[in-house]
Amino acid sequence: MDNKQEILRLLRSVADGTTAPEDALLELKESPFEDLGYAKVDFHRSVRQGAAEVIYGAGKTPEQIAGIVSAMGERGCRNILITRVSQEAADRVAESVPLEYHLLAKLAVAFPAERKQRGNIVVATGGTSDMPVAEEAALTAEAMGNRVTRLYDVGVAGLHRLLSNLDVLMRARCVIAVAGMEGALASVVGGLVDCPVIAVPTSVGYGASFGGLSALLSMLNSCASGCSVVNIDNGFGAGYLASRINQMEGLED
Amino acid sequence: MDNKQEILRLLRSVADGTTAPEDALLELKESPFEDLGYAKVDFHRSVRQGAAEVIYGAGKTPEQIAGIVSAMGERGCRNILITRVSQEAADRVAESVPLEYHLLAKLAVAFPAERKQRGNIVVATGGTSDMPVAEEAALTAEAMGNRVTRLYDVGVAGLHRLLSNLDVLMRARCVIAVAGMEGALASVVGGLVDCPVIAVPTSVGYGASFGGLSALLSMLNSCASGCSVVNIDNGFGAGYLASRINQMEGLED
Amino acid sequence: MDNKQEILRLLRSVADGTTAPEDALLELKESPFEDLGYAKVDFHRSVRQGAAEVIYGAGKTPEQIAGIVSAMGERGCRNILITRVSQEAADRVAESVPLEYHLLAKLAVAFPAERKQRGNIVVATGGTSDMPVAEEAALTAEAMGNRVTRLYDVGVAGLHRLLSNLDVLMRARCVIAVAGMEGALASVVGGLVDCPVIAVPTSVGYGASFGGLSALLSMLNSCASGCSVVNIDNGFGAGYLASRINQMEGLED
Amino acid sequence: MDNKQEILRLLRSVADGTTAPEDALLELKESPFEDLGYAKVDFHRSVRQGAAEVIYGAGKTPEQIAGIVSAMGERGCRNILITRVSQEAADRVAESVPLEYHLLAKLAVAFPAERKQRGNIVVATGGTSDMPVAEEAALTAEAMGNRVTRLYDVGVAGLHRLLSNLDVLMRARCVIAVAGMEGALASVVGGLVDCPVIAVPTSVGYGASFGGLSALLSMLNSCASGCSVVNIDNGFGAGYLASRINQMEGLED
Amino acid sequence: MDNKQEILRLLRSVADGTTAPEDALLELKESPFEDLGYAKVDFHRSVRQGAAEVIYGAGKTPEQIAGIVSAMGERGCRNILITRVSQEAADRVAESVPLEYHLLAKLAVAFPAERKQRGNIVVATGGTSDMPVAEEAALTAEAMGNRVTRLYDVGVAGLHRLLSNLDVLMRARCVIAVAGMEGALASVVGGLVDCPVIAVPTSVGYGASFGGLSALLSMLNSCASGCSVVNIDNGFGAGYLASRINQMEGLED
Amino acid sequence: MDNKQEILRLLRSVADGTTAPEDALLELKESPFEDLGYAKVDFHRSVRQGAAEVIYGAGKTPEQIAGIVSAMGERGCRNILITRVSQEAADRVAESVPLEYHLLAKLAVAFPAERKQRGNIVVATGGTSDMPVAEEAALTAEAMGNRVTRLYDVGVAGLHRLLSNLDVLMRARCVIAVAGMEGALASVVGGLVDCPVIAVPTSVGYGASFGGLSALLSMLNSCASGCSVVNIDNGFGAGYLASRINQMEGLED
Amino acid sequence: MDNKQEILRLLRSVADGTTAPEDALLELKESPFEDLGYAKVDFHRSVRQGAAEVIYGAGKTPEQIAGIVSAMGERGCRNILITRVSQEAADRVAESVPLEYHLLAKLAVAFPAERKQRGNIVVATGGTSDMPVAEEAALTAEAMGNRVTRLYDVGVAGLHRLLSNLDVLMRARCVIAVAGMEGALASVVGGLVDCPVIAVPTSVGYGASFGGLSALLSMLNSCASGCSVVNIDNGFGAGYLASRINQMEGLED
Amino acid sequence: MDNKQEILRLLRSVADGTTAPEDALLELKESPFEDLGYAKVDFHRSVRQGAAEVIYGAGKTPEQIAGIVSAMGERGCRNILITRVSQEAADRVAESVPLEYHLLAKLAVAFPAERKQRGNIVVATGGTSDMPVAEEAALTAEAMGNRVTRLYDVGVAGLHRLLSNLDVLMRARCVIAVAGMEGALASVVGGLVDCPVIAVPTSVGYGASFGGLSALLSMLNSCASGCSVVNIDNGFGAGYLASRINQMEGLED
Repeated sequence: MDNKQEILRLLRSVADGTTAPEDALLELKESPFEDLGYAKVDFHRSVRQGAAEVIYGAGKTPEQIAGIVSAMGERGCRNILITRVSQEAADRVAESVPLEYHLLAKLAVAFPAERKQRGNIVVATGGTSDMPVAEEAALTAEAMGNRVTRLYDVGVAGLHRLLSNLDVLMRARCVIAVAGMEGALASVVGGLVDCPVIAVPTSVGYGASFGGLSALLSMLNSCASGCSVVNIDNGFGAGYLASRINQMEGLED
Repeated sequence: MDNKQEILRLLRSVADGTTAPEDALLELKESPFEDLGYAKVDFHRSVRQGAAEVIYGAGKTPEQIAGIVSAMGERGCRNILITRVSQEAADRVAESVPLEYHLLAKLAVAFPAERKQRGNIVVATGGTSDMPVAEEAALTAEAMGNRVTRLYDVGVAGLHRLLSNLDVLMRARCVIAVAGMEGALASVVGGLVDCPVIAVPTSVGYGASFGGLSALLSMLNSCASGCSVVNIDNGFGAGYLASRINQMEGLED
Repeated sequence: MDNKQEILRLLRSVADGTTAPEDALLELKESPFEDLGYAKVDFHRSVRQGAAEVIYGAGKTPEQIAGIVSAMGERGCRNILITRVSQEAADRVAESVPLEYHLLAKLAVAFPAERKQRGNIVVATGGTSDMPVAEEAALTAEAMGNRVTRLYDVGVAGLHRLLSNLDVLMRARCVIAVAGMEGALASVVGGLVDCPVIAVPTSVGYGASFGGLSALLSMLNSCASGCSVVNIDNGFGAGYLASRINQMEGLED
Repeated sequence: MDNKQEILRLLRSVADGTTAPEDALLELKESPFEDLGYAKVDFHRSVRQGAAEVIYGAGKTPEQIAGIVSAMGERGCRNILITRVSQEAADRVAESVPLEYHLLAKLAVAFPAERKQRGNIVVATGGTSDMPVAEEAALTAEAMGNRVTRLYDVGVAGLHRLLSNLDVLMRARCVIAVAGMEGALASVVGGLVDCPVIAVPTSVGYGASFGGLSALLSMLNSCASGCSVVNIDNGFGAGYLASRINQMEGLED
Repeated sequence: MDNKQEILRLLRSVADGTTAPEDALLELKESPFEDLGYAKVDFHRSVRQGAAEVIYGAGKTPEQIAGIVSAMGERGCRNILITRVSQEAADRVAESVPLEYHLLAKLAVAFPAERKQRGNIVVATGGTSDMPVAEEAALTAEAMGNRVTRLYDVGVAGLHRLLSNLDVLMRARCVIAVAGMEGALASVVGGLVDCPVIAVPTSVGYGASFGGLSALLSMLNSCASGCSVVNIDNGFGAGYLASRINQMEGLED
Repeated sequence: MDNKQEILRLLRSVADGTTAPEDALLELKESPFEDLGYAKVDFHRSVRQGAAEVIYGAGKTPEQIAGIVSAMGERGCRNILITRVSQEAADRVAESVPLEYHLLAKLAVAFPAERKQRGNIVVATGGTSDMPVAEEAALTAEAMGNRVTRLYDVGVAGLHRLLSNLDVLMRARCVIAVAGMEGALASVVGGLVDCPVIAVPTSVGYGASFGGLSALLSMLNSCASGCSVVNIDNGFGAGYLASRINQMEGLED
Repeated sequence: MDNKQEILRLLRSVADGTTAPEDALLELKESPFEDLGYAKVDFHRSVRQGAAEVIYGAGKTPEQIAGIVSAMGERGCRNILITRVSQEAADRVAESVPLEYHLLAKLAVAFPAERKQRGNIVVATGGTSDMPVAEEAALTAEAMGNRVTRLYDVGVAGLHRLLSNLDVLMRARCVIAVAGMEGALASVVGGLVDCPVIAVPTSVGYGASFGGLSALLSMLNSCASGCSVVNIDNGFGAGYLASRINQMEGLED
Repeated sequence: MDNKQEILRLLRSVADGTTAPEDALLELKESPFEDLGYAKVDFHRSVRQGAAEVIYGAGKTPEQIAGIVSAMGERGCRNILITRVSQEAADRVAESVPLEYHLLAKLAVAFPAERKQRGNIVVATGGTSDMPVAEEAALTAEAMGNRVTRLYDVGVAGLHRLLSNLDVLMRARCVIAVAGMEGALASVVGGLVDCPVIAVPTSVGYGASFGGLSALLSMLNSCASGCSVVNIDNGFGAGYLASRINQMEGLED
C-alpha cells in the first residue's frame, strides 16, 4: 500500500463487495511501523491519513527525537514537524539532521523541502502575547502546503482593528482564532465569516483565566455557528485541522 | 440623623477636628433597626446609603415579606424592591400592601410612587433568554429614579445588531451588559464606550456553560478596560450599582 | 446585496483597491434585521454566511418562535431549524406554520423543502444513549443539504463493531463522533480517518462523568490529529460545522 | 476627530438625526492605529474613551514596549501606563524614553507629566501583603488625574482598624477594596459606604485560597449592594474603572 | 464499662502502668452494638464519647428509624436526635415512639427528657434564610444540655446589627457563625470574640455561591484566628462540637 | 483596659444595664493600634482575645517583621509568634530582637519567655511528611502555654500504630489530626475520642490530592462527630484554636 | 470460536509461531454481533471476555431492553444483568422474558439460572445509605457465580464495628469497599487485608461531598496499597471486576 | 507470628470458634513496629499483607530513608522499594546500604535479592512520555516476584500498534494501562482482554489535561468492564495491586 489512491481503490472494492472489510484491514495494517524501543515510529500514517509526520517533542530527549527523525528521513519523509522543542534540543538534533527552527513557536521542521502554498488559511490573534501559539498553527499549516495569512493583535476590545480587516477574513477558506483571557475573538469572527472557524484558547492571562480555562469555556459556548475548539495552546492541532479543511476536494455534485 | 446632607456635615466636622470619629459613629448608629424576630429591619440604610430599600425574597415566606414591607411602609419608605419573589407570593403580599409585580423579572415594587427618571443607563443583552435578568436590572434602576434604555438581543455573533446601536451605547452614562454562554458582549461593549460597564453573567446556556461559570470567567477576564462584574444572574445588583454611578454628583473642581 | 456571488465580487473589488473596506462594510450592513421587540430577526445571515436559518428554541415561548418563523417564512426562508423545542411547543408552532418535528432530537424544521443531499457526513455514536444528540447533528446536516450516514453504538469497548465499519468511516468527507462517559470514540476515529473529525461530548453517564465534563476533556486532549470539539450535547453545532466542511469548494490550484 | 467634545457634538447630531449612525462610525474609525507588526498601536482610544494609554507589559519584550511607547510619545501621549513590567525591563525601556518606575506595583509611567489630582478615591487593603495590587490600582488612578487616599491593613479580623477610619471611607467618591484570603473586606466596606465599591480579589493566601478563587467568590457573593468585582490581582482594572466613576460629570437634572 | 468516670479511671491505670493498653482496649470494646441487619446500633458511643445518640435520617426509611430508636430507647437512651427527617417520616416514627419534631430544622428528638441548660453557646446567622441550619445547630446543642442564645440576621452588610450585640457575643463560651453567600460573618465574629468560633457555611445563595462553596472557602481562609469550619449546611455537627467545647471541664492546675 | 478580668467586669455591667453597649465598645476601642505605615500593629488583641501576638511572615520583608516585633516588644509582648518565615529572614530579624527559630515548621518565637505548660493537646499525623505542619501547630500551642503530646506517623493504613496509642489519644483535652492524601485520620480519631478534634488537611500527596483538596474534602465530610477543619497546611490556626479549647475554664454549673 | 479454552489454544499457537496474530484476530472477530438498529448486540463478548452479558438500562426504553434481552436469550445467554432499570421498566420487560428484579439495587437478572457460588468476595459499606450501590455490586458478583459476604454499616467512625469483623475481612479473596462522604473505609480496609480491594465511592452525603467527589478523591489518594477505584456509584463495575479477580486461576508455578 | 500460613491457621481457628476474634487481634498486634522518632517502621506488614516493604521517598531526607531501610534490613527484609527518590538521595542512601537505582522511574530497590518471576503482567503505555510511570509499575511488580511484559507507545491514535500486539495482551493475567492526555487506552484495552485491567492516568499532557485530571476522569468513566483506576502517576500502586492479582491462588473448588 503506497498512496492514498490505492487506499481509495481498495475501499471502493470493499464498498461494491469485491473485497471483504477484514481483508482490507489486513492490507492496511501491513508493516506499519518500526519499533525503536522507546517509540513505535509510524511510517504509515502519512499514507493512511495523507498528512505530514509530526513528533511531539515535549518529554523526549534530543537523542530520541533525532532517532525518530532519522528513521523517518531514511524512508523519505520530508517537512517533518517537531513541536514543543527547546532551542537547545533543536540544536542537538540539528547536528545529525537538516533542521529549521522557529524560536517563538518552539517548533522545528526537519528535512525541510519546498511545498506549494495552496488555498488560504487566516490565523488571527487577540493580542501580541498569543503569537507563540499562533505561529505554531501557522508554521504547521505552511509545512503542510497551505497559504497562511497572519492577522495578529485584533482583539475585540478594539473592534475597529478587526473590522478594518474584514475583507481578509471573508476571503479565508478557514480561520484559526487564537485568544486567551476571555476568548471572545472566536465568537465575533464566527459571526462574521462563513467558513469553518477553529478556536484555539491560550493560557495567556492571569487570575481567573485559570491557565486558559476561561478562554476554553468561552469558545465552547460560542453563540456563533461554525466554530469548534481544540485544546488550550494547541496551535499544532489547529494548523493540522485547518490544513485538512483547506485542502478538501470539491464535491463532485 | 435624617438625611445625607446631615451626614456630610457631620463628616466634615470630623475632618476639621470639630467632632471625634467615635462620636460620629455613635450618631450614625442610633436606633438603626427594628427587630421582627425573623429579621432585623434596617430603616437606616436609606439614610446611610441613600438607597431605596430592598428585600431579597428568596427563602422568605409571604408573611415575612409582608411583615417587613409593612414595617417599612409605616416609616414612610416608598418604592420598596422585593427581588426573586414568585407570582403566588407576590399575590399574597399584595393583599396587605400596595404592590406592582413584574412577572418576567420576578420582582415587585411595594408602595410604588412616582420617581423622576434621571440620567441614562443602557441595559443590553446578548440574547432573548437573558431578558429576565436584564429586566431585574432595568426595573431596579427605574425604581431608584434612573432613565433606562433597553437594547435586547444584540449578541456579538451578529455584530451588526450591536453596531447599528452604537449611538445609543455611546450616549449612556453607564451600561449594563447582560449575557450568558460565552459572555463576549461585555468585552465588545467595553471596547466601544467610555462610561463604566457593569457585566452581568447569566446562567443561560447548557453543557460547558456550567450554570453561568463560562460567562462569569469571560467577563472577569475581559481585555476591555472599565468593566466590572457582579454575581451570575444578579440583575438587581447591577441595577443598584448603575444607579449609584448614574447619579454621581459632578466634581466640584 | 442578495447573494454570495455578489459578496465575493464586492470583496474582490476590495482586494484590488476598487472599493474601500469601509464602503464594503456599509453595503453589507444595509437593512440586516427586523426588530420584533423580543428578538432582532436576522434575514441577512443566510446571505452573509450562506447558511440555513436557525432558532434556538430553549427559553423562547411558542408564540415567540412562531413569530420569528413567520417573519422568516415571509421573506422566503425555507428549512428553518428550531432546536431544543418540546413536542408541546412544536405542536403550537405547527398551528401557524408548516413544521416537521423530530421527537428524539427535539428538533423541528419549519417550511420544510426538498434539498439535494450532497457529499457524505458520517455520524457515529459510542452508545444507544447518545442518539438524541447524534440525531440533532444528523437532522441539522440533512436540512442543510448534506448526505448523512448513521453509525450508532460503535463505542470503543467493543472495538470490532467500529472496525467492521472501517470502510464507511474512511469514505466520509467529515465524521461527527458523538460520545459520553470517557469519550474515547473521537480519539480512535481520529486515528483511523483522514478527514476532519468533529467531536461532540454528551452528558450521558453518571458519577465522575460530571455532566459531560469527562468526555469533553477527553476529546480536547485527543492524541489524534484532525479533531476539534464543540460544546457538550451540541449536536446542532456539529451538524452545522460539518455541513460547512462537507460543502467546501475544491481548491482551484 | 481630536477630542471628546468633538465626539459628544457628533453623537448629539446623531441623536437629533442630523448625522446617520453609520457616518458617525466612519468618522470615529478614521486612521485608528499604527501597525508595528507585533502590535497594532491604538492612538485613538484616548479619544474614543477619554483614557490614558495603557500597555500590558507581561509577555512583551523591552524592545516591543519601547517601540510602542515611543510611537505613542511621538503622537503626544503622556502618562502612558505600563503594567506588569519587571525592574529589568523597565530599566531597558528607560534608556530610550522618560520613565518613572514603581517597584512594589511593577508599574511604570512613561512620559510622565503633571496631572491635577481631582475628586477622591479610597484604596483599602485587608493586609500588608495586598499592597502590590493596591499600589497598582492607586498609581493607575493617580496617573489618570485622581486624588487617592490609601488605607492599608484594615482587614475585618481587626474591625476597629476599619471603624476608626469610617470618616475617610465615607468621604470617598469610589472605594477600591483589595483583599485576599476570604475577601470579606468588600462586604463590610460595601455595607458602610454609599458610593460604588470596586472589589479586587488578590492571590494572597495559601491552601484553600486556591490562588485567589476564595476571595473572588466571596466578593461576587457579597451581600452588600453597590459592589462589583474585577479579575484577581487586577489592580489596574480597578484603578481605571474608579477613575471613570470618580470623574463622572454631574447629572444636568 | 458504664460511664465516663470508669473510663477515666481505666485510662489513668493505663497511664501509671497498672493496666496494659491492649487490655484497656478490650474492656472498651465489649458488646458495643446490636446488629439490626440494616444497621449496627451503637449503644456504646454515649459511654465512649459522652454524647447523646444521633441518627442521620436522610436515606433511611421511617421503619428503619423507628427500629433503631426503639432499640436505643429500650437501653435507656433519651434525647435521641434524628437529623434531616421529613415531617412525614417523623409522623410515622411518632406512632411508635415519643417524639418532638422541629419543622424548620427538619430535626426530631425522640424520647425527649428534661436536660439542664448549662454554659452559653451563641448561634449567629448572616440572614433570615440561614435559619434552618442555625436551628439544627441550636436544637442539637439544647438537646445535649447547653444554653443557647440565638442572634439571627446580623450579617456584615449591616455591621451595626452585629456591633449592637457585641456584649452577647463576648459573653459566649463558643460561637456558631452560620452564613451563606460570602460567609464573611465568621471572620468578623472571629475578630471580635476570644472563644472558639465554629463556622457553618450554608448553601444559601445563587450563581457563584456554587451551593455553598463560596462560603466554605471564605470561612476556611478566614484571617481571624480561633475559627474552624464544618461541612456545608452541617448544623448538627456544629451544635455537637459546640457542646463538647462548652462543656469542657476546667484545667485542674 | 488592661486585662481580661476588666473586660469581663465591663461586659457584666453591660449585661445588668449599668453600662450601655455603645459605651463598652468605646472603652474597648481606645488606642488599639500603632500605625507603622506598612502595618497597623494591634497591641490590643492580646487584651481583647487573651492570645499571644502573631505575625504572618509570608509576604513581609525582614525589616517589616523586625519593625513590628520591636514595637510589640517595647509594649511588653512576649512569645510573639512569627509564622511562615524563612531561615534567612529569621536570621536577619534575630540581629535586632531575641529569637528562637524552628526550621522544620518555619516558625519563630520572638522575645521567648518561660510559659507554664498546662492541660494536654495531642498532635497526630498520618505520615512523616506531615511533620512540618504538625510542628507549626505544636509549637504554636506550646508558645501559648499548653502541654503538647506528639504522635507522628500513625496513619490509618497501619491501624495498629494508632490503636497502640489509644490511651494517649483518650487522655487528650483536644486532638489536632494532621494528614494529607486521603485525610482519613481525622475520621478515625474522631470516632475514638470524646474531646474536640481539629482536622488539618495538608498539601502532602500528588496527583488527585490536588494540593490538599482531597484531604480537605474528606475531613469536611467526616462521618465522625466532634470534628472541625481549618485551612490546608494551617498548623498555626489549629494550634491557636486548640489552645483556646484546652484552656477553657470549667462551667460554674 | 465457542469457548475460552479454544481461545487459549489459539493464542498459544500464536505464541509458538504456529498462527499469525492477524489470523487469530480474524478468527476472533467472526460474526460478533447482531444489529438491532438501535443497538449492536454483542454475543461474542461472553466468549472473548468470559463474562455474563450486561445491559446498561439507563436511557433505554423497556422495548429496547426487551428486544436486546430476547435476542440474547435466543442465543442461549443466561443470567443477563440489566443495571439501572426502574421497577416500571422491569415489569414491562418481565412480560416477555423471565426476570428477577431487585428493587434496592434497581437491577434485574433476565433468564435467571442456578450458578454455583465460588470463592469469597466481601462487600462492605460505610453506612446504611450506601446499601443500594453495595447491592448492585453483590448481586452482580452473585449472578457471575461468586460467593458474596455482606458487611454493611461498618464505617470508620465506629471502628469497633469493623474490627469485630476482622476475621470476615481477612478470609476474603477480594473486598469491595463502598462508602460515601469521606470514603475512609477503603483506606482502613486496605491497611488490614492482603487481597485486592476495590473502592466504590458513592454519592451519599451533602454539601462538600459534591455528589461523591470527596469520597472519590479520598479513595484515589488512599495511603493503603492494593486499592483501586471505580466510578462513583458504580456497583456493577466493582462486582464485575471482583468476579474476575475472585475467579483467577492459580499460577502454574 | 511469622508467616502467612500461621495467620491463616489462626483465622480458621477464629472461624470455627476455637479462638475469639479479640484474641486473634492481639496476636496480630504484637510488637508490630519500631519507633524511630520520625517514623514508625512497620516490620509486620510483610507478614500481615504478604508484601515487600515500601518506603515513599518524597518528603523524607536521605538520612531518614537510610535509617528506615537499615532497620528493615536488620530484620531480614529484602527487595525494599523506595519510590520517588532522586538520584542524589539514592546515592547518599547507597553509601550505607546495598541499593539498585532506576533513574527513569526514580525508584530504588534496597537489599536487592533474586526473586523468581512468576505469572504475567503486561504494562502498556499510550506514549513515550508515559514511560517513567510505567517503569515505576513494572519495576515494582518485578521486585515483588512477577514476570512483566512491557508494551510501550501503543496509544489508540494509531490503533494498529495496539492490535498487532493483541496476542501479548490476551495472554496477560493482569494489564496495567498507563496513559495521559485523554486516557482512552484503558477503555480500548479493557474491551479486548478478559483479565483485570488497572488504569493509571498520568500527568502527561498540557492545557485541558489539567495535570492528569482528563485521563483520570476518562478512565473512571470507561465503558469497558473489568477496569479500575489508581491515582494519577501512581505507578507503584498499580504494580503492587497487579502483583496481588497475578499471584492469586486458584479457587480450591
